[in-house]
Amino acid sequence: MPFHDRPVFPRGFRCASRNVGLKPTAKDLALFVSEVDAAAAAVFTRNQFPGAPVILGRETIKGGRLRAIFANSKVSNVATGERGLENARRMAAAAAAEIDSTPDKVLVSSTGVIGVPLPIDIIEQGVRGMSAELVANPVIGAEGIMTTDTHPKALSLSVGDATITWVAKGSGMIEPNMATMLVYIFTDAALDAATLDRMLRQAVDVSFNMLSVDSDTSTSDTCAILANGLAGAVDEPAFQAALSAGFLRMTEILARDGEGATHLLRTTARGAKDLREARRIAKTLVNSPLIKTMVFGADPNVGSILMAVGKCFDCTIVPSSTSAWINGHEVLRDGSRLDFDDAVVRAALGSEVVDIVVALGVGDADATAYGCDLTQGYIDENAAYYSS
Amino acid sequence: MPFHDRPVFPRGFRCASRNVGLKPTAKDLALFVSEVDAAAAAVFTRNQFPGAPVILGRETIKGGRLRAIFANSKVSNVATGERGLENARRMAAAAAAEIDSTPDKVLVSSTGVIGVPLPIDIIEQGVRGMSAELVANPVIGAEGIMTTDTHPKALSLSVGDATITWVAKGSGMIEPNMATMLVYIFTDAALDAATLDRMLRQAVDVSFNMLSVDSDTSTSDTCAILANGLAGAVDEPAFQAALSAGFLRMTEILARDGEGATHLLRTTARGAKDLREARRIAKTLVNSPLIKTMVFGADPNVGSILMAVGKCFDCTIVPSSTSAWINGHEVLRDGSRLDFDDAVVRAALGSEVVDIVVALGVGDADATAYGCDLTQGYIDENAAYYSS
Repeated sequence: MPFHDRPVFPRGFRCASRNVGLKPTAKDLALFVSEVDAAAAAVFTRNQFPGAPVILGRETIKGGRLRAIFANSKVSNVATGERGLENARRMAAAAAAEIDSTPDKVLVSSTGVIGVPLPIDIIEQGVRGMSAELVANPVIGAEGIMTTDTHPKALSLSVGDATITWVAKGSGMIEPNMATMLVYIFTDAALDAATLDRMLRQAVDVSFNMLSVDSDTSTSDTCAILANGLAGAVDEPAFQAALSAGFLRMTEILARDGEGATHLLRTTARGAKDLREARRIAKTLVNSPLIKTMVFGADPNVGSILMAVGKCFDCTIVPSSTSAWINGHEVLRDGSRLDFDDAVVRAALGSEVVDIVVALGVGDADATAYGCDLTQGYIDENAAYYSS
Repeated sequence: MPFHDRPVFPRGFRCASRNVGLKPTAKDLALFVSEVDAAAAAVFTRNQFPGAPVILGRETIKGGRLRAIFANSKVSNVATGERGLENARRMAAAAAAEIDSTPDKVLVSSTGVIGVPLPIDIIEQGVRGMSAELVANPVIGAEGIMTTDTHPKALSLSVGDATITWVAKGSGMIEPNMATMLVYIFTDAALDAATLDRMLRQAVDVSFNMLSVDSDTSTSDTCAILANGLAGAVDEPAFQAALSAGFLRMTEILARDGEGATHLLRTTARGAKDLREARRIAKTLVNSPLIKTMVFGADPNVGSILMAVGKCFDCTIVPSSTSAWINGHEVLRDGSRLDFDDAVVRAALGSEVVDIVVALGVGDADATAYGCDLTQGYIDENAAYYSS
């Protein structure tokens, strides 16, 4: 898919971001606005302690129409009780007043530390005047939602006369269904809410739901799509293909920027008994600390691959038909380690993108999971996350 | 339970260990011998790529009688095909010849790198003469089975006239059912193989099967118990209590010596719907990278506790009845973070043993899991495990 060299917005979308003092100097508020009401759909975390914005968002999205997304970083408004829900409602109302809309058309997100009350007065005050600062550059909005991300994340591509734009954040506490991710997708294609919902779920299923940085699942994950229709109708299969391609690309961008990561790790299970088993094996590989540290160290301790496959107790594994490759180099065949050239495999593991493929030989199902290596950087960031 | 200040062997058990060149200088062979045949039982890894010694061990233990255990470290004899199984048989035969027994009475173990052929000639040569070096100190045997362990692990206690002794190794790739563990238990109590098997499984269920250093499951785990009867009959309930106490103590020793660990982490789920859910939640807490790094950094990012509980999608979680404590300090109540004194909780997290207790308030089931913090040391060890 031809992604734009520099991300742009579809017709009618703009954004603004600001520092209002939640963080010392970095941006901590972001506002995304469509000039007309947009059809909308969203999926949220499956964590059983959803944040207040997720609880409110599930209600809001039932209406199927959004004008804006309003998000803050630094404080997540999770584990904050009834007061937290009230604060999420006040956030939506403040943004609605600023853009001359209604709170039921504003989706709010909060990301950051869990369990700290939202500084709602600062946010209500902070959003005032943001509508005068709206610009057509999605990177500006991406800057406002960063937490431990090392760079703002935005992408766009064209499909027919329409544009699709992704703005995202996320780098730790990422294990799908959904991940510590906020991902907002904007398009000027004309699609109704039900169609968007179906397309969104199809795209998420093979992308964000196969992404894991650390197996931890955030309480705040939100992935929402807005279609304002200003580009008119689109070819649906072409749109779905473009949507899925962008989701996969953004999944890889998030994985590569996993906390402390130095490699993008893609793990593929081929020839599994069924899709459930293929996904389970791919996810187990991508989450294995021994595989993640092997990739970090470029150390061809390839027995870890068999170990990780073998710990999928509920999957159909036949050692004598299991083989594996690292960036195309076969390292295991029929359950035994091959006598490969260490230096060659070490070099392959040194590549920025490491693909581990396991062929199970028991069926026809394939799946790929996305993650990263495990490094000292992850430890450093999370040993003092709350304090920093 | 009164553990001996220095571990001793029960009547009739002795051991020896040697360096035969599998490692540069550290000991790499260990032989444990009973002077008479002993009743025996064992449990093994559930990994679907079991090592050759595990495949052979499952056959051997069916006889219910053992005279000896013979183990090497450095090379695990896993993913080595038919040749590996033949090498495991040759190991048993070599030890049997040395102690004047038969191969069906010798359990063999190999621990270390996966996928490298066992240097069987060196091992066959190396075992010769070990029977002349047998001593009554179990620590000598523990030294021969160490891999990344920072110290040899042995324990003993008395129950009536009998003694029970544990010799173990394990520090990484530890997630039970069973873990990269080798654990050998020796007793002079008179118990038959069926009774031993039942008692072993009961003790393992709440100890090693609730231990996780990194969620990775080894291909070599073996836990075997030998009872040579030289102390005569024992009170079975007292023996089971002592056995279970020693398993728990050894579980904590293994967890505390997890690769790179600086804290022992114990996580308890109380008031869960049923035992399955209590165990699942306790294990999820002990495996969460964000909780493990929080403990390492003594950083009271207590929202991680709710996050980890909440990602148990298949468990009954009621946010408004969920509370949590860190070393006795309540940090979450009814789903919300308490406004606790940061310095106090930080100090509590600084303790060498960190207990995290979560009360679910939905039932009567309790479970505790055992693990450790996640540190730079884990990364350092595993980024170059194969090469080192």
